[in-house]
Amino acid sequence: MAILAVGSVAYDTVETAVERRERQLGGSASYFALAAAPLAPVRVVGAVGHDFRPADLELMASRGADLGGVVRLPGPTFHWSGRYHADLIERDTLATELGVFADFAPEIPSAWRDTPYLFLGNIHPALQAGVLAQLRRPRLVVTDTMNFWIQGARPDLERVLAGTDVLLVNDGEARLLSGRRGLADAAAVIRALGPARVVVKKGEHGALYFGPEGVLAVPALLLPQVVDPTGAGDAFAGGFLGSLAAAGADAASGDAPFRRAMLDGTVTASFCPEGFSVEGLLRADGPARARRLESLLAMMRP
Amino acid sequence: MAILAVGSVAYDTVETAVERRERQLGGSASYFALAAAPLAPVRVVGAVGHDFRPADLELMASRGADLGGVVRLPGPTFHWSGRYHADLIERDTLATELGVFADFAPEIPSAWRDTPYLFLGNIHPALQAGVLAQLRRPRLVVTDTMNFWIQGARPDLERVLAGTDVLLVNDGEARLLSGRRGLADAAAVIRALGPARVVVKKGEHGALYFGPEGVLAVPALLLPQVVDPTGAGDAFAGGFLGSLAAAGADAASGDAPFRRAMLDGTVTASFCPEGFSVEGLLRADGPARARRLESLLAMMRP
Repeated sequence: MAILAVGSVAYDTVETAVERRERQLGGSASYFALAAAPLAPVRVVGAVGHDFRPADLELMASRGADLGGVVRLPGPTFHWSGRYHADLIERDTLATELGVFADFAPEIPSAWRDTPYLFLGNIHPALQAGVLAQLRRPRLVVTDTMNFWIQGARPDLERVLAGTDVLLVNDGEARLLSGRRGLADAAAVIRALGPARVVVKKGEHGALYFGPEGVLAVPALLLPQVVDPTGAGDAFAGGFLGSLAAAGADAASGDAPFRRAMLDGTVTASFCPEGFSVEGLLRADGPARARRLESLLAMMRP
Repeated sequence: MAILAVGSVAYDTVETAVERRERQLGGSASYFALAAAPLAPVRVVGAVGHDFRPADLELMASRGADLGGVVRLPGPTFHWSGRYHADLIERDTLATELGVFADFAPEIPSAWRDTPYLFLGNIHPALQAGVLAQLRRPRLVVTDTMNFWIQGARPDLERVLAGTDVLLVNDGEARLLSGRRGLADAAAVIRALGPARVVVKKGEHGALYFGPEGVLAVPALLLPQVVDPTGAGDAFAGGFLGSLAAAGADAASGDAPFRRAMLDGTVTASFCPEGFSVEGLLRADGPARARRLESLLAMMRP
């Protein structure tokens, strides 16, 4: 079944200790769509500027993403620029140029308002709430957010959480949102805000799932080389929700499809840091995914 | 089968955001012995000073540790003092007073030289090598070390590693020792130095096992409250080697008993941060261990 993904379609300039790449395809909706498309149909809603390269749209379309909700607006494409530290985890943001994203108010094409699965990428919670209001009773809503909105737009965020089935956050965000240090406590506080299920992403340390039936800890795959970790969280979301959409899961399903989705999210995300921009993700074909799923299961088998 | 544990028997002064405790029982051999004793007989080799309280010796003995190798020397007991940051992970060392530990050269009682299992706690590698030389063909040698020795006593450490079956290190130490960032690469480099098996401890993110038959990732248990994380690594080692000694495993065993030992180490370590000093560890009785093992296995079940 189809997924509607709302988020940024951006250009990123990324600098690591060994290389610098300028204005490459990035943004939460782009990473999500390329990650989810092999698993389920994806419909993308976003905005690009006059400078957005047709080749980048073609790339996403060729991988199966339906770009019928991506509008081209006057002005430059959203541009993020950052520099990673030597550990390839910590990073400094050098520039955030919102461009056409500054006035972006997502409009869901009317034919898409029945889409069963919804991914609310990390944008202002007021916009996420606006998208939620345009959809007719989605089967499952998965939401991402960040520190900036937790601190700066809490009332809007709480409205979104009330309509969210699964919240994806990292460990720092889970602690900030809940005011709790222990992650099980943090997840309990967040679940009381709406989402019955909470996923806490911890990068190279894996991810934790907190659901009605219990907890699952999934380790990250051990990567020989990390090139550029940008987008791994959105790639996780794409693999996660792609798996749920392929299984036809909904909020009333037991934990089983969600636990399986944690594995698919982890496997999908593992390709992302192996290349700059979306390059690693493009190498995630069926056989490569299957091999990594096997490695992951072997790592988890006591 | 019995375990010989060599390490520090110390007094720790620990300060957290909420409390300060002075000169409480600490040291790698103390934590290890209290953690391993419920699983297998433990023989402790160490040194204490004139100020060491008989009650602390009695506590260890009452839990089953054989203190026949703990000598009392003139001078004060080794004293470490540290202050934890609010996250209860980062810490600053305020004082390290070696006391009788400065001239400690472990002497293994002749009746103990056939002990089948050996834990070389985190002391100078030259002393670890000296202990190794006094033992007659131990079945299994498990070694701990730290950044300070990796950087300052590398040749001695390499001698110890050549006689080690399992090295226990944290992720930073694994990277420093190997010069590799990726942990699978780091483990491969370390294994080439001697230990066929490497355990990488990651605190609240769990632990990784690298053995001849593959990799195992074990998450940490989710603790509602962390009081004092001091000693959790040595408690892990105690649960780990205690499990192996109880199973009669040796270097030629397959990975199965080592994978099981990862679970027992994780469960044992989880009690440690729940109290100051060894208080949490003392609450690790059979039923509590069994409940946590069940929780851990449920968290790992895809």
